[in-house]
Amino acid sequence: MDNDSLLRKLNLPEDLKKLNDFELNQLCIEIREVLIETISQTGGHLASNLGMVELTVAIHTVFDSPQDRILFDVGHQCYTHKLLTGRLEQFSSLRQENGISGFPKSKENIHDAFISGHAGNAISAACGIAAAKRLNGEEGKVLAIVGDGSFTNGLTFEGMNNTGKAAENLIVILNDNEMSISKNVGALAKYLAKIRSRPSYFNAKDRAHRILDHMPLLGDPIEKLLIRGKTTFKELLYHSNYFEAFGFTYLGPVDGHDLSRLKNVLLRAKALKEPVFIHVDTVKGKGFASAEENPGAFHGIAQMDLSGKYTTTSSCETFSTCFGQCLLELADKDDRICAITAAMKYATGLNFFYKKYKERFFDVGIAEEHGVTFAAGLATGGKLPVFAVYSTFLQRAYDEVLHDAAIEQTHIVLAVDRAGIVGDDGETHQGLFDVAFLSSIPGITIFSPFTYAELQLTLKEALYNTPGVVAVRYPRGSQGLYADTFESSIEYTHLSDSKDSNLLVITYGREFSEVLLARDKSTEKFDILKLTKITPIPPECVTMAKGYQHILFIEEGIQNGSVAEHFHTLLAKNGYTGSFTIKAVDNCFVTQASVSSSIRNVGLDSDSIVEYIKQESLR
Amino acid sequence: MDNDSLLRKLNLPEDLKKLNDFELNQLCIEIREVLIETISQTGGHLASNLGMVELTVAIHTVFDSPQDRILFDVGHQCYTHKLLTGRLEQFSSLRQENGISGFPKSKENIHDAFISGHAGNAISAACGIAAAKRLNGEEGKVLAIVGDGSFTNGLTFEGMNNTGKAAENLIVILNDNEMSISKNVGALAKYLAKIRSRPSYFNAKDRAHRILDHMPLLGDPIEKLLIRGKTTFKELLYHSNYFEAFGFTYLGPVDGHDLSRLKNVLLRAKALKEPVFIHVDTVKGKGFASAEENPGAFHGIAQMDLSGKYTTTSSCETFSTCFGQCLLELADKDDRICAITAAMKYATGLNFFYKKYKERFFDVGIAEEHGVTFAAGLATGGKLPVFAVYSTFLQRAYDEVLHDAAIEQTHIVLAVDRAGIVGDDGETHQGLFDVAFLSSIPGITIFSPFTYAELQLTLKEALYNTPGVVAVRYPRGSQGLYADTFESSIEYTHLSDSKDSNLLVITYGREFSEVLLARDKSTEKFDILKLTKITPIPPECVTMAKGYQHILFIEEGIQNGSVAEHFHTLLAKNGYTGSFTIKAVDNCFVTQASVSSSIRNVGLDSDSIVEYIKQESLR
Repeated sequence: MDNDSLLRKLNLPEDLKKLNDFELNQLCIEIREVLIETISQTGGHLASNLGMVELTVAIHTVFDSPQDRILFDVGHQCYTHKLLTGRLEQFSSLRQENGISGFPKSKENIHDAFISGHAGNAISAACGIAAAKRLNGEEGKVLAIVGDGSFTNGLTFEGMNNTGKAAENLIVILNDNEMSISKNVGALAKYLAKIRSRPSYFNAKDRAHRILDHMPLLGDPIEKLLIRGKTTFKELLYHSNYFEAFGFTYLGPVDGHDLSRLKNVLLRAKALKEPVFIHVDTVKGKGFASAEENPGAFHGIAQMDLSGKYTTTSSCETFSTCFGQCLLELADKDDRICAITAAMKYATGLNFFYKKYKERFFDVGIAEEHGVTFAAGLATGGKLPVFAVYSTFLQRAYDEVLHDAAIEQTHIVLAVDRAGIVGDDGETHQGLFDVAFLSSIPGITIFSPFTYAELQLTLKEALYNTPGVVAVRYPRGSQGLYADTFESSIEYTHLSDSKDSNLLVITYGREFSEVLLARDKSTEKFDILKLTKITPIPPECVTMAKGYQHILFIEEGIQNGSVAEHFHTLLAKNGYTGSFTIKAVDNCFVTQASVSSSIRNVGLDSDSIVEYIKQESLR
Repeated sequence: MDNDSLLRKLNLPEDLKKLNDFELNQLCIEIREVLIETISQTGGHLASNLGMVELTVAIHTVFDSPQDRILFDVGHQCYTHKLLTGRLEQFSSLRQENGISGFPKSKENIHDAFISGHAGNAISAACGIAAAKRLNGEEGKVLAIVGDGSFTNGLTFEGMNNTGKAAENLIVILNDNEMSISKNVGALAKYLAKIRSRPSYFNAKDRAHRILDHMPLLGDPIEKLLIRGKTTFKELLYHSNYFEAFGFTYLGPVDGHDLSRLKNVLLRAKALKEPVFIHVDTVKGKGFASAEENPGAFHGIAQMDLSGKYTTTSSCETFSTCFGQCLLELADKDDRICAITAAMKYATGLNFFYKKYKERFFDVGIAEEHGVTFAAGLATGGKLPVFAVYSTFLQRAYDEVLHDAAIEQTHIVLAVDRAGIVGDDGETHQGLFDVAFLSSIPGITIFSPFTYAELQLTLKEALYNTPGVVAVRYPRGSQGLYADTFESSIEYTHLSDSKDSNLLVITYGREFSEVLLARDKSTEKFDILKLTKITPIPPECVTMAKGYQHILFIEEGIQNGSVAEHFHTLLAKNGYTGSFTIKAVDNCFVTQASVSSSIRNVGLDSDSIVEYIKQESLR
């Protein structure tokens, strides 16, 4: 992009209002160039952002941020918004350590009205901001831009049902690209498809009213029939649209790549003194042939060359693919096994299962709460349900795991992917809380395998030898160093180097690699206890640990509610009198960086561990 | 009820099929008698159960439980179901220790298809059970009976959106009594009111179709208009009902107290091979004048005399009323304060606020997730939002507290009511988890006041001197023993009896009464540290505690993730070498009993504490 480009020359977003449609379209071309160029370097959400260019430009042209507040649901489609609100220069630092976030963050920029990352919060938050505006007597609209995927989510629904008091200044924009991450699912998706097939919906409605008003009234009894019919029709028309049932004025569908139409419909919405719902059709990957053809593959990418050959690591073996293949093999032998995903068929590795066993596969949309309760229902009916879900998204279903499954010891398996640090998605996506919230639930069992082999072993154990709710949790990416030579265990592995060691390092999951690496680097001698079953803690582990003078617990998770704390409690109960040191993530959110850099930043890398061990030896 | 009564004589539910309508109505009269008689003794949910008598009888007459599975959402309206499925003799033990539950529990009885207590899980669970039935090739329908209040809940929506694969054998019954616990709210409530006002909705639709089919087609251009019109109308009609947008066949509304009509519509639903939605209008409190007139007051009652004078303790001062009055006083002076409830205006004490400041009061329906995110939105707009919510229901919003508020340190206040043991509602409603899940969230502050005065103090502290997310949690009911003479503190109170005591008992909240009582009963000397701010733990507390040889931590909450564990961690970090004993609720769900009995059952009563202290003194 040269210095003469509009994107560089203009004072944005203010100057947008001065541009004619030709110039605005020119700007869109420039934005697409930057998006493709940058994301090919940094990785990120390509397809969804390419689909949002015109809509975002139109919004910033018609509205005045930050007086008008703009919220992006999920948020990964906010790149154009970032480019238009003063972050062009920093854009190459997207998703990098100390760079700008791939999601809206109100602390990053005044134009980012609300944090996002997890689907479904935009309408709720917008209701709150709009209500505050009303109470404060402030001018301005509040816009929530929500993908159709998020309309499968319960929080979105709760927000929609509560727009009443925010009424006058709320605008919800449905960015309908016929998919969330994979193809969208559920009744509402079908319904949207139906609306889309009637491109002049709101015109049709106007016309229907006109027809009724001009309908000739003939002689009795046809006359009576028609009068009665007219009333019925008018009544039905009034509630003929799902979104209108929530009290919105519905406008659309509008072509999301036609700037002039977009501006018109936005101006109309701006003028209305009532909650407005705008239905915008967009094409995911718009303007980049490879991404348009295969938007799923280009949803979140690592890096690519500009010919469109993306070079993700998705073809390598990961915990996700290992899980997916293992579950498929188990399902071959046991037709009770059912698989559930919340709109993450590919990312969780369930695509293998889906291909072969469509009947037993359930994509519930972005509906983690339903995912868990539905699984409990399947289990009640004699099935063996496995819900594969990211750690961070399982946070949504804490109550469902506890209330709908655990109280009655209903046997469901949670395959908790991306457990631990996830890297460049940052604070909103870290999998650092699942151990804390899951281990608070009575009767639960949690496994944290270190290798693919251990994942296979514990998944089987979870399905066939463990009652109640069982979670098998594993990190993002591939198995780590030392995995090849490691012998799997269901409960724990004790590595005793020397008979007279008085320091025991306890850890589990991915951190075991770091601890082993620390052992290779360290001059001190210590023993290692690697847990596989982290809740409940195997009693032998406590007995064994009690024999040491010093214990160092290394945990890739939040400290409050950690396995380390539970272990410490058991040790105290067993009369342990030695020292106990916890190194975990202590009362902070972990910001974006590569996984390895993040692990270093929170002090859980092998070098830091070497240091802790040195300190222990000085006790 | 005499021995000759139908309820006693018949073999239920099987014999229902042999009864004529007159006899069925006779049975309903008998059931109402039992309900009123029993609930006046035991306490329980009177009004909702009186409204469900005919519907439940009709369901068990038309369907065959347990082959057909019947799920009750929320579940407190299941009493007639319990009477019809072999629990007449035990019915007087309702909600008592070791008695039958006030909610469906599949472990209690084969006819209870799924656990309930928290709103919104029935359709999700029913989808799972129905899918399992289909996969198993089993006969039978799955019925989810859901109150209109639950239709404000996101999980209900997620369930509705996922009925697709369960299709053929799912029946959702909307028990529409125009209220959840208080008057129902939100767009959907208004929509339901509209449908109700058209009592022959589905007939009207049939008629409209007939009119269209027989409409005379006249000469051009009217002909063309009409043909086009016809198509448009038919399309619109197809989606004219909100519930039909989810793919259901809609039947209703039906009078929920007309047995013959109910049986007809259920038979029609039973015959259909598609997901059916039946809309039933019921009257809460039906058949008991006082309850019909004032269903809110008779929603959940303690005890009453049969004249209808209920003798709840609701007129006494409780933590809820104290909170409500205090918030009102603060709101008098600060118009930034907003109050939010999730359908619990009265129970949380927010009725005072509501009466005076309707504009700043928000009842969001049974939508705890939205409640939190909406609060974060209000805060973003410069308001001081206070969300009053039961501990057990806040479980639903773990992710929203963490993701939508805590990450950006958005200042919201959670007034967590019914924190701790709640008594006769049992496992599903205990407030034993909030400390564990909330304290895992970085940056959060949690106060646990002991007295009303301390509640007032900490509420002010939460609003005005504490950043980010703040929770103030307090138990069900009134302040305890020793409250009158106790001097409030914001952080902690240290009671040192003797200079040479080497035992420190740490506790907080309601348990402080038990510990003081134990001190009066015990022959041993010990000091007491009563925390008010339980997260983060005040550093001085750790320093002070370090000086003792033995520490006993008494906590009315789940052990994994407890303040005790966090305190223990801090002690270890500070080089504490003494003993540390935790007495908390260890890895179990607490079943129904009175609060005092439950506290004894989990070993947190003063007598048990005396015993623990004796053991400590023997160390």
